[in-house]
Amino acid sequence: MREVVEKKVLSENDRLAAELRLRFQNENILCVNLISSPGSGKTMLLEKTLAAWPKDTPVAILTGDIQTDNDAKRLSRYGFPVRQIVTGGTCHLDARMIERHLNEIGFRGPGILFIENVGNLVCPSSYDLGEIAKIVLLSVTEGEDKPLKYPGIFHRSALMLLTKTDLLPHVDFDSGLALENARKIHPDIEFIALSARTGEGLSEWLNWLNALRQKISPQVAATRSLSSVTSK
Amino acid sequence: MREVVEKKVLSENDRLAAELRLRFQNENILCVNLISSPGSGKTMLLEKTLAAWPKDTPVAILTGDIQTDNDAKRLSRYGFPVRQIVTGGTCHLDARMIERHLNEIGFRGPGILFIENVGNLVCPSSYDLGEIAKIVLLSVTEGEDKPLKYPGIFHRSALMLLTKTDLLPHVDFDSGLALENARKIHPDIEFIALSARTGEGLSEWLNWLNALRQKISPQVAATRSLSSVTSK
Repeated sequence: MREVVEKKVLSENDRLAAELRLRFQNENILCVNLISSPGSGKTMLLEKTLAAWPKDTPVAILTGDIQTDNDAKRLSRYGFPVRQIVTGGTCHLDARMIERHLNEIGFRGPGILFIENVGNLVCPSSYDLGEIAKIVLLSVTEGEDKPLKYPGIFHRSALMLLTKTDLLPHVDFDSGLALENARKIHPDIEFIALSARTGEGLSEWLNWLNALRQKISPQVAATRSLSSVTSK
Repeated sequence: MREVVEKKVLSENDRLAAELRLRFQNENILCVNLISSPGSGKTMLLEKTLAAWPKDTPVAILTGDIQTDNDAKRLSRYGFPVRQIVTGGTCHLDARMIERHLNEIGFRGPGILFIENVGNLVCPSSYDLGEIAKIVLLSVTEGEDKPLKYPGIFHRSALMLLTKTDLLPHVDFDSGLALENARKIHPDIEFIALSARTGEGLSEWLNWLNALRQKISPQVAATRSLSSVTSK
């Protein structure tokens, strides 16, 4: 009985996500969905990303949490439209929430839409939000075996960001082993190691986004290359 | 429709959990349920706890993960019965899983049953497992606002363990603020700061368990005080 309802919910979500995906394509919106455990550094990465972003390039952020609008407050300092989605207990974002809040902020492409999911390495992986790519963050404090323990999200993510690399000297963490484990689950997963604190890997991350943008919509990205941002 | 099914699942779980709670009472089993984000240090804390435990005191461990039996392998080195519960996608443990695996390992009280839940700060908080106490772990790398963002689990936990305190010199984390936030959600929550790596706070944690054991079953705990363990 429960499985039947779950399937129905997911198939309705997939239908809405397909509509969103078409809308993103038509409007030249690059939508990425950031997923991780609580406290892996999604918000801080977005802060650093927005700080480096040209102010005249359309960007919007939808950030999900069970409670509080702390993240939206942090992210709204960078001059881009930000909307907090308070799920009130729900452990993930779904396509309906994205559609509603996107309409409310009135964001139109071309541009980039960052979705910061609820901090949870399990449930958000099942919900398609119409994004072009899921991105999983894993911090160096969490242990190398997480890709094996939480295979769903590593299987579905295009990119794995290893965060908080500034803490590597202080923890027992083998980055090579973490990547090896991730590639056991998903052989083609891309990989960037970064520290939002020191700036290590940030330009690689911005270049990754720009390359994805060019792939999707060459004429848009060419007008405002992110490589010019990272070399500032 | 979904809410109806959710309610039915939770009420069936509550019924089973009540049976387990009665069984734990009758057999003098102290059952605690450890919940945290992935990588907050549940397994390492249990390893240190088991290493300090008198080998003739009955202890059993049920450890949950979406995939892999890594944790059971790590925990089985200490000479106590350990059972891995692989949920295969389910984001939490439920009372039925506990009942089944407890029967399979044939654990009888008096003693202590540690349940290490799936790494997830959201979903496990809704599932009563018949435990006498939920214990939430928060590592110093995760940010002080987590109690406000994930209020459910902090509201329902008797104890908050602040873990990985050895990393405090290397992160921007205010332990006082984290506790203040937790007590906004749950004014009576108890608090221990510890580092499984350096041993800081471990004796406090063992004493906390022993005090709880004495409260539940004075005659059992008196026969084998844990204070003798921590002063070894």
